[in-house]
Amino acid sequence: MIVVLAGGVGGARLARGIQRVIPAGELTVIVNTADDFEHLGLAVSPDLDTVMYTLAGLENPSQGWGLAGETWSFMAAMDKIGGETWFRLGDRDLATHVERTRRLAAGSTLADVTARFCAALNISAHLLPMTNDRVRTLVHSDDGILAFQDYFVRLQCEPRIRSLDFEGAVSASACPAALAALRAPSLEAIVLAPSNPFVSVAPIFAVAELGIGITRRTVPLVAVCPIIGGKAVKGPAAKMMAELGHEVSALGIARHYRGIIDGLVIDNTDGDAAQPIRELGMAVHVTDTIMSDDEGRRRLAAATLGFARTLRSNAPWRDRPPVV
Amino acid sequence: MIVVLAGGVGGARLARGIQRVIPAGELTVIVNTADDFEHLGLAVSPDLDTVMYTLAGLENPSQGWGLAGETWSFMAAMDKIGGETWFRLGDRDLATHVERTRRLAAGSTLADVTARFCAALNISAHLLPMTNDRVRTLVHSDDGILAFQDYFVRLQCEPRIRSLDFEGAVSASACPAALAALRAPSLEAIVLAPSNPFVSVAPIFAVAELGIGITRRTVPLVAVCPIIGGKAVKGPAAKMMAELGHEVSALGIARHYRGIIDGLVIDNTDGDAAQPIRELGMAVHVTDTIMSDDEGRRRLAAATLGFARTLRSNAPWRDRPPVV
Repeated sequence: MIVVLAGGVGGARLARGIQRVIPAGELTVIVNTADDFEHLGLAVSPDLDTVMYTLAGLENPSQGWGLAGETWSFMAAMDKIGGETWFRLGDRDLATHVERTRRLAAGSTLADVTARFCAALNISAHLLPMTNDRVRTLVHSDDGILAFQDYFVRLQCEPRIRSLDFEGAVSASACPAALAALRAPSLEAIVLAPSNPFVSVAPIFAVAELGIGITRRTVPLVAVCPIIGGKAVKGPAAKMMAELGHEVSALGIARHYRGIIDGLVIDNTDGDAAQPIRELGMAVHVTDTIMSDDEGRRRLAAATLGFARTLRSNAPWRDRPPVV
Repeated sequence: MIVVLAGGVGGARLARGIQRVIPAGELTVIVNTADDFEHLGLAVSPDLDTVMYTLAGLENPSQGWGLAGETWSFMAAMDKIGGETWFRLGDRDLATHVERTRRLAAGSTLADVTARFCAALNISAHLLPMTNDRVRTLVHSDDGILAFQDYFVRLQCEPRIRSLDFEGAVSASACPAALAALRAPSLEAIVLAPSNPFVSVAPIFAVAELGIGITRRTVPLVAVCPIIGGKAVKGPAAKMMAELGHEVSALGIARHYRGIIDGLVIDNTDGDAAQPIRELGMAVHVTDTIMSDDEGRRRLAAATLGFARTLRSNAPWRDRPPVV
């Protein structure tokens, strides 16, 4: 069994690749829900849906999020009747939010609702929210404290970030199935997807039970570097990284994850960083990490799992002092 | 000023015609809300929306309800994720329900929400729900007691009706603006649209304040007959009428509205019924009542208002004993 810790697009693509190289049912994806929000009265879970649509093969291939063949009549009508339109909800995507909102209001957990959707969409992976509780990323910026989607979508990540806060994370319970997956005897590796370290990965670790569960693992934790040649493939990770005082590079990522991960997969472009990263005390695997198509995802997935396997046999994580 | 009492399609079309023959702002339409329901967690008001879309000129011209150029991606996606699809909500139409639900949850009344939508859609008429309170039509049928939309849409009006009940009507307060319109010194006539007498018109009268307000009027109340040549132009009015023990004809409608209305507009097809109807103690106007296009609506509106004007000058309603 493999556990993937994922945010949105990067996590979705790698999870899809892993789903293709291991037997059905052996993949568990634990997804960030700190960017969830209530919009137009609906429960919206952007990262969860991006991963779900991608695992189902329904995602919009060019933008990475949303559904292929989406239509936008709802937004046009919303504009006409004077409703809010800054967060764009497609007509197909809306079914997910309406049905999720209805089921949550009827007493289901977010994990239950997600499992039902996955069953309906024939997804063999176990897709789990990190928690069924409410956790919300707050962006402390030069423009004040902003709700995440306000910062991310409405303000297009313009305000300069000072720090981040994950409201509710400390007291949130981990999704029980996520904890069980991390403790499963059949678990072989934990893969940290090339997702934004600050707003996608950090909230997962901030849920105390998950942070502890991941730290107490008995299998390797390998990350795929989200920075390639000093840039993020997608999204504001590079801008945030700089604003938070990190060097925007593979080495910067390695420093950020030092003491947390056992190995880092970096792109060929950043091959020169391999040695300095190894000197930080982690293993490195250099390969092509751009997932431009399904074959690219499959290849990176196979390389990442192969890398994790070598770490497992070398067991370097056994010598690492525990980090909490 | 003119007040129209309306249900769905027939009421919408006549209201649209009247809007075109009187100055902007002089039309108030009081609409049945007893067929409102909560579906997929959304507040759906079918009659109110049919009238609103028609007054805005946005209605689907062939089916009479819903929006022109509607798309159905939401329903297709809902089907895919295993949600309910028996009540079809179009992508554009959905914006109305989502925004209404959000505003109601935030504390607005149904009348407030409707007024906002009308302003956004440049509707000059005052469109009012009969009440801001919850009233729900229950169909007592051979298959048991059914919620209205279950009967109407899901079961396609198949079960035989025994009686109808308007849950909440007795204790519901009338929409304040509706009461004010019925009492306005400038009011010239009340027009009862060719809507279903049992499930569209009866609930309006069942809201006690409205029933009394209409009865205490000092202007004529004229109805446009919803039955033409023994058939309903649209919907199950004829089937219901038969099941409830009425003769399915213009005369049957006149008997049903006897003591309630001052005059009835009937179709040329039913010209033979004019004399028997007059013998019931009401005035009759015979004309073409089919509203096949905008010109047909305008023509019927002008004829109906002209008919009401003759009644006003003759004032037969002044001699009629009050009916409560």
